[in-house]
Amino acid sequence: MLCNTMAPARTIEKPITGQDARLQCRTNAWDSPTCGIAPGYLQANLIVLPSQYASDFAILCARNPVPCPLLASSAKSGDFQNFKSHIPGISGDRIAKAIDIRTDVSRYNVYVEGRLVETAAPSVEPYWNNDDHVAFLIGCSFSFENALIAAGLPPPHILHGRNVSMYRTNIPLAAAGVFKGSTYVVSMRLYRRSELERVRDITRPYVTTHGEPIAWGWDGMRSIGIQSLQHPDWGDLPLTADGVEVDELEEAQKEDGVVPVFWGCGVTPQLAVMAAQIPGIVMGHSPGYMVVLDVREEDVLGGM
Amino acid sequence: MLCNTMAPARTIEKPITGQDARLQCRTNAWDSPTCGIAPGYLQANLIVLPSQYASDFAILCARNPVPCPLLASSAKSGDFQNFKSHIPGISGDRIAKAIDIRTDVSRYNVYVEGRLVETAAPSVEPYWNNDDHVAFLIGCSFSFENALIAAGLPPPHILHGRNVSMYRTNIPLAAAGVFKGSTYVVSMRLYRRSELERVRDITRPYVTTHGEPIAWGWDGMRSIGIQSLQHPDWGDLPLTADGVEVDELEEAQKEDGVVPVFWGCGVTPQLAVMAAQIPGIVMGHSPGYMVVLDVREEDVLGGM
Repeated sequence: MLCNTMAPARTIEKPITGQDARLQCRTNAWDSPTCGIAPGYLQANLIVLPSQYASDFAILCARNPVPCPLLASSAKSGDFQNFKSHIPGISGDRIAKAIDIRTDVSRYNVYVEGRLVETAAPSVEPYWNNDDHVAFLIGCSFSFENALIAAGLPPPHILHGRNVSMYRTNIPLAAAGVFKGSTYVVSMRLYRRSELERVRDITRPYVTTHGEPIAWGWDGMRSIGIQSLQHPDWGDLPLTADGVEVDELEEAQKEDGVVPVFWGCGVTPQLAVMAAQIPGIVMGHSPGYMVVLDVREEDVLGGM
Repeated sequence: MLCNTMAPARTIEKPITGQDARLQCRTNAWDSPTCGIAPGYLQANLIVLPSQYASDFAILCARNPVPCPLLASSAKSGDFQNFKSHIPGISGDRIAKAIDIRTDVSRYNVYVEGRLVETAAPSVEPYWNNDDHVAFLIGCSFSFENALIAAGLPPPHILHGRNVSMYRTNIPLAAAGVFKGSTYVVSMRLYRRSELERVRDITRPYVTTHGEPIAWGWDGMRSIGIQSLQHPDWGDLPLTADGVEVDELEEAQKEDGVVPVFWGCGVTPQLAVMAAQIPGIVMGHSPGYMVVLDVREEDVLGGM
């Protein structure tokens, strides 16, 4: 798999399976971003909330599955080992064997009363409340990016070793209890207009990991409230596959050739949680340091 | 149950169960709207498509569950008797025992090549293709309206014997294959601002039948692209619970008292299908003449 992150400075064995990855993260043998490790295994975003907000958050995901595709959640409040699956046809015991979600991500962010108090923490054992915390695992775009690479349509940011460009939009999330007033975040990849239908077809089956694009084209961009690609809210400035910066694209090329393509983005649920300013201790993975699961990418194809 | 439709002119036995209702519709003993019959049983919108578009439509529903909550679909192409359940925890055989979807709705609309060719047809047997048609059953708002009535917060249109007011919005549906470029339709009910949080709480658990509101308030109205309540795109002009027409609401009352509350609406998927202009024969129920299921309203509470 092509990857937009640097290899670790130390020479260590790259994890082959999801369980390998979790064990190496637990012991801090692996302390780099997870892009490109355990190829074929699903990776997930992590959000941990006080149980009081768990039901609202699960409903937020159920109502907004494109930007917030819920894969699994703690089997009960405080449980850091057992997960309930939200993936059709996948039972809870197939999510992540012998996982300890307090240690099996290599880097965590911790928020107390809405304030970031620790970044890149190697474990959240000191913060985890055995009676109360609920972990949520949310799909990420690695699955459909791998499918695009396999089809000969690699996302340009991967070709050029950059982060994907992400933007706020004006598309409202369907509210759920305390989680209200938030909007979609989208990730953007530049493709040629002639490639658009193939890009849509290839990513469509990944229903539980953002699926096909939600908007495309220059008019489509403006219709979701993005005026320009030159100021991503997260990630790097976008490039075309040929390495052309977006501000250098000729107007003609814009119109006839290269178009922005937008997908629902896993930053959306984090933003919704931050916006709700919920009290207590909230935790998540550090960006790029994902939870690696036992579920295979082919297991989430379709899901209808 | 309070109901906004007229009683049938003939005196006939009101169906008590979902199966009663389907049998009476099949024989045309019942030929009135279904509001208020078989109390406690779930009612559903019907959309029947050529199989070529079934996958895209199922994905459209999966990606937009608030306006397009998919309850069940034909077990296989052409099957008018057996349904696959999309309701968590409910198996296919519990959807509608011994149903024949070609006859068990009392009135159908039929479209050929995108043109309405029959309205209020008592059966679609002549149109049904045993090798090809796929039926989709989609949740409707009766469930949460019954819950609001039970809680002492009856929707004003029901109190005054009107149809609910429905509006187009600017909220984009997440595209799915041929179904692209459509937007949410919402239904609107006027409530006092002081009732808003109870209204949200009461309707929240109905995750598979539109759930809690997606927007509320006068600013909320404008933010989803509705400039005025005085021109609903479907249904009747709205009234407050006290019977005040919306254009007579004093500005002060608007600001401090009565606010519009908007829910995802089952007209959305029909509009998306019409917009896609798919060829062949498409069928649906006539508005108000729903499919009555065996599933009970309490069976769909939560669904998380």
